[in-house]
Formats: sequence, C-alpha cells, structure tokens
Amino acid sequence: MNSVRKHIRQMHPYIPGEQPKERGLVKLNTNENPYPPAPKVLSAIKRAVDGRLRLYPDPRANRLREQLAGIHGVDSENVIIGNGSDELLGLATRAFVDPDKDSVQYFTPSYSLYPVLVDIHNAKRNEVCLLDDFSLPTVAQLRKDKEWDFKAALTYITTPNAPTGRGYTTAELDALCRAQKGVVVLDEAYVDFAEENAMDLASKHSHVLVSRTFSKAYSLCFQRIGYFVGSRELISALDKIRDSYNVNGLGQVAAEATLENLIYYRSNFRKIIKLRENIVMILEGLGFESLPSQTNFILTKPPRFAASVWLKKLRARKVLVRQFKEAHVKDYLRVTVGTEKDMNVLLQAVRSILKS
Amino acid sequence: MNSVRKHIRQMHPYIPGEQPKERGLVKLNTNENPYPPAPKVLSAIKRAVDGRLRLYPDPRANRLREQLAGIHGVDSENVIIGNGSDELLGLATRAFVDPDKDSVQYFTPSYSLYPVLVDIHNAKRNEVCLLDDFSLPTVAQLRKDKEWDFKAALTYITTPNAPTGRGYTTAELDALCRAQKGVVVLDEAYVDFAEENAMDLASKHSHVLVSRTFSKAYSLCFQRIGYFVGSRELISALDKIRDSYNVNGLGQVAAEATLENLIYYRSNFRKIIKLRENIVMILEGLGFESLPSQTNFILTKPPRFAASVWLKKLRARKVLVRQFKEAHVKDYLRVTVGTEKDMNVLLQAVRSILKS
Repeated sequence: MNSVRKHIRQMHPYIPGEQPKERGLVKLNTNENPYPPAPKVLSAIKRAVDGRLRLYPDPRANRLREQLAGIHGVDSENVIIGNGSDELLGLATRAFVDPDKDSVQYFTPSYSLYPVLVDIHNAKRNEVCLLDDFSLPTVAQLRKDKEWDFKAALTYITTPNAPTGRGYTTAELDALCRAQKGVVVLDEAYVDFAEENAMDLASKHSHVLVSRTFSKAYSLCFQRIGYFVGSRELISALDKIRDSYNVNGLGQVAAEATLENLIYYRSNFRKIIKLRENIVMILEGLGFESLPSQTNFILTKPPRFAASVWLKKLRARKVLVRQFKEAHVKDYLRVTVGTEKDMNVLLQAVRSILKS
Repeated sequence: MNSVRKHIRQMHPYIPGEQPKERGLVKLNTNENPYPPAPKVLSAIKRAVDGRLRLYPDPRANRLREQLAGIHGVDSENVIIGNGSDELLGLATRAFVDPDKDSVQYFTPSYSLYPVLVDIHNAKRNEVCLLDDFSLPTVAQLRKDKEWDFKAALTYITTPNAPTGRGYTTAELDALCRAQKGVVVLDEAYVDFAEENAMDLASKHSHVLVSRTFSKAYSLCFQRIGYFVGSRELISALDKIRDSYNVNGLGQVAAEATLENLIYYRSNFRKIIKLRENIVMILEGLGFESLPSQTNFILTKPPRFAASVWLKKLRARKVLVRQFKEAHVKDYLRVTVGTEKDMNVLLQAVRSILKS
C-alpha cells in the first residue's frame, strides 16, 4: 500500500537534540536556559491549574498578543502566537509557498529545521553558503554569485545565527530585506543574548516577519510558545491556517506572567552573556577556536581530537554537547552556556580529556 | 503584493465556538466536560511546575504513548500524540493527500473543521450527505449513488458524529473501511459517551487511523492533547512531519496522570449520559425534537421559533448553545450536556422563552 505521499516516504525528518532521561548529566546540547522561570511565573501557572483546564484556551491568545504588541510598539493584529516558533515557521511554508513553482531559501549553516520544512511541503530548496567565517554575504556579493534568489517566495534568516552563534547587524539585514521580493522571516530565537535586534524591520517592511520564542531566553521550552510580528496581511494569512486552539492554555498563562517579570530574565541574560565571554577566553587558552557568539551557545573547534570524538569523550564525563554532521560545521562542537557550575564541570571535563 | 497564496486568500477559516470572557454564563456551546480534571491530575500538574519548565518536553511523548499502547493493546509505535487531535487531522492531509490529484472526503454534516483542512491543503473536497435522519448510508447505497469515492486518498468519519450526536456501529464502520482504498480516519472525539467504539479497526486495517482526544471526555481542552492509533506505516509518516516538540510538557504530564485516574472520569461519563437521556425526555415534553445522542451533547430542533432566534433568546438568559448555518442543521441547536445545575438553568430559560 502506498498511502503515504512519495516525497514524505523519501524525506529525512528533523532530528531534535537528545532529551536524556538520565539524571546527573550537564545538559549543554539544546540551548536551554540554565535558570528556571521567574518564581512569579511558576506561581501564576500553579494558580491557573484548576477546574478551568476543562475549558478551551483563548483561541487567539488575545491577552498575550496585546502584551507583546505593547512591548514591540505594534498592533495586536501584527502578532500571532504559535505552539513554539517551529509551528509558525512551518505555517509560513503553507501560507506563502506554492510547492509547484516556488522555492524556499536560507543560508547554510543555519537552523537545521528549514530543509525539513521545505521537504515536508515538497517545495524547492535554495541553500546558499555563508562566507567562510560564517558571516553574511552582502547583497552585491549575492548578486554577483547568482546563487541567491531575490524572488524566492520565502527566505528564512536565523539572526543571530545557529549553530554558528554569529550576530548580523540590522543594517545588513535591512539591505537584504530591501532587495528581497518574497516573504522574509528573520528568526530571532536567540536575540535576547545579542547586542541588537531587527524587530523594527517587521514594521518597516510589509514582507518581513520577525520570529521570537519564549523557549530559550524565557526558560519556557516545556510550554511551547513562540510568536511572529509582521504586517497585518502576512499575520492574518498565518492566522487563517493555524489550528484554532494551537496554543495551550498554561503556556499562555506562563508567557503572560513572563512579560510581567522581564527584570528577572534580563538579569539572567547578563549573567549568561558574561559567562559566555569568559568561557570563550578560557577555551581559547586550551586550544579551542570559538566563533564570536551573540547567543547563549558557542560554536567551537576543539583541538587534538575530531569533534565527533570530543562529543563521546564529553558524554563519557556526563557532559552533553551537540555536534552537527553537515560539512561546514562538522569540525565544531556547539556548547550551550549553562550556569557557572555547569561550565566548571565542562572545563574540568575538557582539561581531563586534554590530559588523557 | 501577493505574497499570500491565492487559495489561502480565498478560503474561509474555521470558526471555533465562542470562548466568552463574560462570567456567569452557562457555557453549553463547545462540548466541554462540565467536571474538572481529577484532583490527582491537578496535583500532578502542580508538582511539575518548577525549574524543569526551562527544558524541552519529551519530543515523542514516550511515557504517554506507552500508557496508551497498553490501554489499547497496541505497540507504542502505533500511537502518535498531537497538539489536540486537530493537529493530527491536519497532518493527515499533508502526509496522505497530494493536492494536485487527490481528494479528501467526509459526510455532511460532520466536524466543520474538515473542509477547512482540505482548503488549507488546496485539495479537492468530496462531501457526501448522510441519510435524512443523519444515519450512515450503507456501502451498497454509496455505490449506487456514485457520489462517494472509494478511492479517496483520505476519508474522515466522525463517530459518534458531531454535530448530530448519532453513533455508528462498529459493524457498519468496518464495512465502510473494508470498501475504502485510501486512508480512513475514524474521529472518535466523543466516543467515551457512546455505547461502542471502533478502536479495534485501527489494528484490523492498516489503512485505518482512530483519532481520540483528552479534551472532551477527560476535561483537558486547555492543554491540547489528542492522539491517533493506527498501523506503524501511517503513524510513522505522521511522526516524520509533525513539529518535533508538538506536545507541550504540562499537557503530557496531565494526560499521563489522567490515565492513572480513569475511575474518576468513567463515573463522570455515566453522570453525563444519564443526564443526557433525562434532558432529551424533558425537552421532548416541551416540544423539542432531539436526535438520539451517543455524545456529550444533543442536537435538537426547537419549537415555535427558528433555531437562530432561540440562540439569541438563550444568550439573553445567559445560556450559550451553538447553532450551525449549514442547510442540513440550521434548524437545530447543539446543546452540550453540562452539570445538573447547568441543565436546570437551561430548562428554566427554555420554559421562560416558551412562555414569552
């Protein structure tokens, strides 16, 4: 029986980072925030756990959208909430990309979900390499190389980028958006750890969507809350095709409370950024070559052994990091910045491996 | 700018039942369970609200799938969990239906989400009327009428049906599934209020998926947990294309605890079924013609005024029910069975309207 569509039988699914059951591991593999949600957020969720769970949540997450609209200086009709930003990234293919004729493009390396979303949708992929140091080519370079499609129906740009950690300036993103005819999604999953963000471009350009998530910066991976900001036209198209109750109720409650406790989170961002810079320096002294990071992780080329060997040696010492098999990045490890204690365990493991 | 695909600009979105902010309404419009989740379920959720929210949930919801596999006598590879069953119903179009050549079919009236899912996917709809009393045509009748497509890539059957409330026998569903070449989804959202269920058909036929939800029977609308049971081939196709963290963590915790407290819920089912039968009798005495129901709601044709007028008159008396505009059912009201107290408020409102 061939009930399953051919392209789905043939495609490779997205492989999420390991979520281990094992206790006592230092988990630096999926860029989770090492700090818990704010105490007031936890109490707000607990207070909501009662008979109301029998009722459907607000299908449009109105309160959360209004809060976010206030923060970003837009109207609530310019905001859509997703079951994590992953859901919205997928909806964008279905709303904006005709699989029979359109292509979806992105730079490599960037978020490894994009090719999977394109394959699910059975559209054409246009993958264009970043420069050798993983920085963004200029519009002039892209025009010269002729690989980039300025008419692509949908372009995803991870900014700051993952898994490289590099930040792009709003000026260079603006130039690229201006040159682009189709929809551009600026995927700012890690932007709270960066020096600048490009949220203004979502208001400046009617074809630009900015993607954000509560997962990483706001310690809410468990509850799946992401959002897009953009023009009313694009947001309403996504809104039409999402599941009507796509955002779980306790996730809405958690995100709403988060936005009332931003001081707590901003203090965590500062701690993580400071620690990130320290770790890069210490690792440099041990022979690691790290890319400059604007995120809560570091992409670093380890000395002496192949990255895949380091992965196993660290795992044997109860430290979980991530390594990608793609050609550009296979020599690197991606290490999430955890707490000071986590980082000490990491450094101890690294030193012990180097001595072995 | 035409960034939005034409068929999406032209389609009509699904309209969920109203989720009112207003307090003091008797909410009998979206088939929610009137009873809260079991106390042990609420405590299990509260216990999980801590620093772990910073971590991603189990991407495959393994514990929950194993519990469900045990209950249904299948392997956990035969189970997939969704962000509500709505998510899985949508995934089925993308996994099994080629929009360029395939059609999706269902009986009318049934769940009003199906046409929307087909329109989002830009596939062909094949809508076939139920018999005049809303019962299921036999395979012989369907063959004779020639409207039903026995080769449709995907067929949705709501069983027991919504919004009619009618139950179908496993024997008639089995006959229909046997005659069908493509994938059949038996959407059993309301089956816990019915006399029989067709779960066995998911094991008997490799092209049959059975859809279930924790929303209605298990008082968990807020947390978005549904699931499909079916052959490994179909389940793994859906698994490949779902978002990797599609099921929020507290929803998983809630559903797992629910399955450890089934006695509580079964007692609620009995109360709701008993009350349903009482209400049908009382309404009959007041001139209402109700269809026999195997669900937690009643589809009933009101006397004296048009159903749309009843809707407004009941709303004015703080009772919210639902009315559908489709030709087959526009003369009916769909009334969720609430608590005894809710039903007394409803009956009081009905009597006052009849006297006015």
